[in-house]
Amino acid sequence: LAERGLEIPLSELWQEPQGGLFRAAVGLGGCSGAFVSAAGLVLTNHHCVFQAVQRNSTPQNDYLTHGFIAHKQEEELPGHGVKVYVFVKQTDVTEKILGQIPKDADDLVRYEAIEMAQKALVKECEQVPSRRCQVSRYNDGLMFVLLENLELRDVRLAAIPPRALGEFGGEVDNWRWPRHTMDFALIRAYVGPDGQPAAHAESNVPFQPERFFPLSKQGVEEGDLVMVVGTPGRTARYRTSAEVRQDEQWFYPKRAEVFGEWTVLLETLCRQEPETCLPGASRLKTLHNTLTNARGMMEGLRRGRVVGKRMEQEKALLEWIGQDAGRRERFGNVVSDIEAFVDSQKDGRDRDFLLRYLTWGVHGLSFGRTLTKWAAQQNLPDEKREVGFQERDKDRVRAELEEAGKSYHALVDQRTLAMLLQRVGALPGQERIAGFDQALKGDYSPVAIDRFVKRLYAKTQLGETPKRLALFGVAQDKLAQSRDPLIRLAMSLGPELDAYDERFKREQGAQSRLRPPYIQAVSLWRGKTFYPDANSTPRVSFGTVTGYSPGEAEHRTPHTTLAGLVAKHQGISPFDVPAAVLEEARKQPGLPVCLLSNSDTTGGNSGSPVLDGKGRIVGLNFDRVYENIAGDYGYNEALSRNVMVDARVISWYLEAVAGAKSLLSELGI
Amino acid sequence: LAERGLEIPLSELWQEPQGGLFRAAVGLGGCSGAFVSAAGLVLTNHHCVFQAVQRNSTPQNDYLTHGFIAHKQEEELPGHGVKVYVFVKQTDVTEKILGQIPKDADDLVRYEAIEMAQKALVKECEQVPSRRCQVSRYNDGLMFVLLENLELRDVRLAAIPPRALGEFGGEVDNWRWPRHTMDFALIRAYVGPDGQPAAHAESNVPFQPERFFPLSKQGVEEGDLVMVVGTPGRTARYRTSAEVRQDEQWFYPKRAEVFGEWTVLLETLCRQEPETCLPGASRLKTLHNTLTNARGMMEGLRRGRVVGKRMEQEKALLEWIGQDAGRRERFGNVVSDIEAFVDSQKDGRDRDFLLRYLTWGVHGLSFGRTLTKWAAQQNLPDEKREVGFQERDKDRVRAELEEAGKSYHALVDQRTLAMLLQRVGALPGQERIAGFDQALKGDYSPVAIDRFVKRLYAKTQLGETPKRLALFGVAQDKLAQSRDPLIRLAMSLGPELDAYDERFKREQGAQSRLRPPYIQAVSLWRGKTFYPDANSTPRVSFGTVTGYSPGEAEHRTPHTTLAGLVAKHQGISPFDVPAAVLEEARKQPGLPVCLLSNSDTTGGNSGSPVLDGKGRIVGLNFDRVYENIAGDYGYNEALSRNVMVDARVISWYLEAVAGAKSLLSELGI
Repeated sequence: LAERGLEIPLSELWQEPQGGLFRAAVGLGGCSGAFVSAAGLVLTNHHCVFQAVQRNSTPQNDYLTHGFIAHKQEEELPGHGVKVYVFVKQTDVTEKILGQIPKDADDLVRYEAIEMAQKALVKECEQVPSRRCQVSRYNDGLMFVLLENLELRDVRLAAIPPRALGEFGGEVDNWRWPRHTMDFALIRAYVGPDGQPAAHAESNVPFQPERFFPLSKQGVEEGDLVMVVGTPGRTARYRTSAEVRQDEQWFYPKRAEVFGEWTVLLETLCRQEPETCLPGASRLKTLHNTLTNARGMMEGLRRGRVVGKRMEQEKALLEWIGQDAGRRERFGNVVSDIEAFVDSQKDGRDRDFLLRYLTWGVHGLSFGRTLTKWAAQQNLPDEKREVGFQERDKDRVRAELEEAGKSYHALVDQRTLAMLLQRVGALPGQERIAGFDQALKGDYSPVAIDRFVKRLYAKTQLGETPKRLALFGVAQDKLAQSRDPLIRLAMSLGPELDAYDERFKREQGAQSRLRPPYIQAVSLWRGKTFYPDANSTPRVSFGTVTGYSPGEAEHRTPHTTLAGLVAKHQGISPFDVPAAVLEEARKQPGLPVCLLSNSDTTGGNSGSPVLDGKGRIVGLNFDRVYENIAGDYGYNEALSRNVMVDARVISWYLEAVAGAKSLLSELGI
Repeated sequence: LAERGLEIPLSELWQEPQGGLFRAAVGLGGCSGAFVSAAGLVLTNHHCVFQAVQRNSTPQNDYLTHGFIAHKQEEELPGHGVKVYVFVKQTDVTEKILGQIPKDADDLVRYEAIEMAQKALVKECEQVPSRRCQVSRYNDGLMFVLLENLELRDVRLAAIPPRALGEFGGEVDNWRWPRHTMDFALIRAYVGPDGQPAAHAESNVPFQPERFFPLSKQGVEEGDLVMVVGTPGRTARYRTSAEVRQDEQWFYPKRAEVFGEWTVLLETLCRQEPETCLPGASRLKTLHNTLTNARGMMEGLRRGRVVGKRMEQEKALLEWIGQDAGRRERFGNVVSDIEAFVDSQKDGRDRDFLLRYLTWGVHGLSFGRTLTKWAAQQNLPDEKREVGFQERDKDRVRAELEEAGKSYHALVDQRTLAMLLQRVGALPGQERIAGFDQALKGDYSPVAIDRFVKRLYAKTQLGETPKRLALFGVAQDKLAQSRDPLIRLAMSLGPELDAYDERFKREQGAQSRLRPPYIQAVSLWRGKTFYPDANSTPRVSFGTVTGYSPGEAEHRTPHTTLAGLVAKHQGISPFDVPAAVLEEARKQPGLPVCLLSNSDTTGGNSGSPVLDGKGRIVGLNFDRVYENIAGDYGYNEALSRNVMVDARVISWYLEAVAGAKSLLSELGI
């Protein structure tokens, strides 16, 4: 690393338990970020705080469209739920978890024992005020780690570029390189006057982080070392061929098919009924993003021949296992057991796919399910309740029920439900969903679905936020008397949704049983341990600024500039640079906008600081290239590339466009 | 040109009237092609003869899937309507046409006078047997040219690669570079034993062309000169800003919107009702192709700031005109007249867009309109009939009515009509279509449309080919008594469709009145004449083999190879290389597959031979790059690139994959 340009000893980057420079890297719950000043300023992506900007925006003060700069701290805007998590420490709790699993536990019991043990550890850990804790599973259950974070819940918006820059290129450029997107935001974390985390209050003061990263003025060039620090969410580097095959041949194609239809449905509806556009926008963005992801996965897995290569590896592994009686006994079935388990799941997977997206995608069903399930779960002692339905979740669930009002539109809901019901109607006999079969009397013709859906929404009150919130936390027997058709539907679907939840638990239990021995076998065979799959825990990836060739006859270089931004400008969204920015951009055509490296990232790395060998921020991670989507299944030297905002364009924007003198001086620029 | 590598004197390429090497370039009616042997062998694109291959294919002999090679001439397959047009000569007929326009003619009279004069010239010209003639308009009516072609109507298929190669990359790679598509086919033209064009007959013999192009074994490299010879269809290089603005802001967005919905409709229907896939396939391909074209047009026009640049030119032109009284009088209104005309068209353009695509896209309406219009037109003397409805068109129209049976599917038709009717219902008051308003009693709700459409198709017999053909050419009064609902609908829409046809004629008339003076003014201003817009007449473009940069941080080189084909292979359509081909391809990874040049091409150049400086075929044109779609509005040195099959991969396929010894020896390889 020193040869490649790392000028800081590794021990100064991070060392247990005292920490190090990386203490300045923070989590944002699904995103990453970094302290960039001694006064709690945090750099992250525009898309990570998008919702907060939206909630601050009104037609009079449209910060989403025009951007926002706080020239003084008093001008900062409320964060509307944005939270900053400062990593405190981690503890190996493997023994404490595994010791709780009863002998001869079936997969459900196994799952529940692990869950129970985890919940107990989290509860104990969260006795400390403002401490948020989680138990993370490494290598699918070979190791369990308790992670402790300090939760800073008064977070405010300090600098936001206009959406036209923060989302420049939109869905067209999403997952692509070259990029010209200024996907950055500056937010600030506050604490009480006593220095302790506190709810939003006038009297709060900026949080003083232990460490922060300086912003580089020089940037990096092709060939330079970079480090990406953050909390990548989930990779699948150690799946067996059977698992990858199912993903490639069933899961992603199914998702691409359904989400493809779904995006068109929302787009068409938005054109025909413009009042559905705004409520549907956020969902549409997620669908588009996931759709492109699914397509990239399929293409990448096929082109990379991932299944074939895994099969070859497994053949070699099994040969090695077969050479020794002890290995044969311990590991003889590690591959075939997983394959058998994958096969055993096939029968219900189309139904479960639909159940998953019915409760995710149809707000009415989601409301009904949340309210009825909460009512049922609240009867249990807290430690027996499911994750997500405990007392610690109450405020969050209520807030979600409230906020969902902004993305609810009855017509969007009806059309979405109708589209999914058409698929429910086509499920084979053994996968029927009785609750729907009864409600529709088995008639899934377009006319019957249309009538059913219309009747459902004509009478429901769950679309009205106060009425919906009034039903949150009411006693189960009282809710059972509700005549609201969506509550009644959720109740009649209850047994099937409970069974779905149980199948999910069994699957998790099975994986925690089947995958650790497989990982152990691979590890022994290879004679080394290897980094665990991403699991939302802090990681660092060392990479190099470099271009790539996405295929024959194409080469892409690792830097874009303001000249390229100007050239991409079309005057209409998503390629519409505001006139004032265009004017400034023309003055400094060579200034870097985005850059590319071969660092290993995935979802969750959004907002990750990218450091040079001196530990200065030279970039801000926000995406990967299309050819690297399937990189979740394996790092590829030729194609694994992450996309970053160049730190220099952030300074340029603050200076030349926004005239944000005080922020610049706070950043030391 | 000699410096750039042209080793043949221009006079040997072409000279009026004796001709030259380019005599070997032929037309295929919408496509181009080239004689490549002394025995009538013609090289063109796979996609130009796709339909003929499809019509020869059966489940037992599936040439579409597996490809086809005639090892002897007797094995060649029938061309099912493929025709080869050998260019004979051209004559300036400007005076003969313009002399027929009455003074003070309005635009309709003007159009009809031109049409009438053209028809008379064509009729006279076609007195010679097997002569097909057309009058082409240059520079929108500054000049008219009579083109004479020899029509060879016994054409047979000699060599066709499997669809997986001929269409490799499908819609994903369509309009893109890099490409790995072997979009070629070899066909052979036959004549009667007397050497005269004849209908298909056993006794026919191969046509002996005056000239043919040899196939190069060496190919070309980056920087080499190439010549693309063919019949480009239509460009818009001299439109005014008002016209381009309408295209950019109304026409292409409208097309993209409607075709976007339409493609999804056909794709969804194909998934839900698989028997609709095959009949809908060809339409879907056209829609996809046109959709991508529309998107590319919008992007290219916006990024290229074409409207803004035209406005600047017009400002300079008007300044020059204003400097002189004579110019002011003659040309003072050339720009504003066109703008006023474009403005005058705005009111009905959405309605006319729908009328156009209703009769194009809904087979039932198309049948009804053709039958009823033919019945009306046949009452007129032949020279008074509309183009396309004369005696010379009878066989073609009947054949089209028959062949359309293969792409007709009642359900596809119903859904398409319903989708378009929803848009008809949304037309503003002054654009209402009375025929539909009456038929639907003004109720365009989804339920009412559904009911209307179902009733229409429940009773019609036009979907049955023999019954449809039986109605072709029957007397108008007899047809008027038909109770077929599609005939009745076509009749009740008749006045509106006639009015639409008349508006189209008036528009053509207006353009022939307004655009020549504009072109003249520009020409005088610039002090030079310039090449006329493409109009399906023979052209040559001299270019250079070269890569390009589609945008910042991206560079594309001008050659792909078999290694790239193998790398793109995914095992599923449209990236599925047959196993035997894959095996051969792995043996010669460096062999070129496709190449790129900066030649100036457009639609109609499909199948154009691409020659090196010695006049040998080094490539076969088949596409343009996405960034060059808007090149129709102006050649762009940096982005105008055409895509070709490298001649070397054609030889390789014939030799290594197909073992086509006799064809190779005929080609001199």
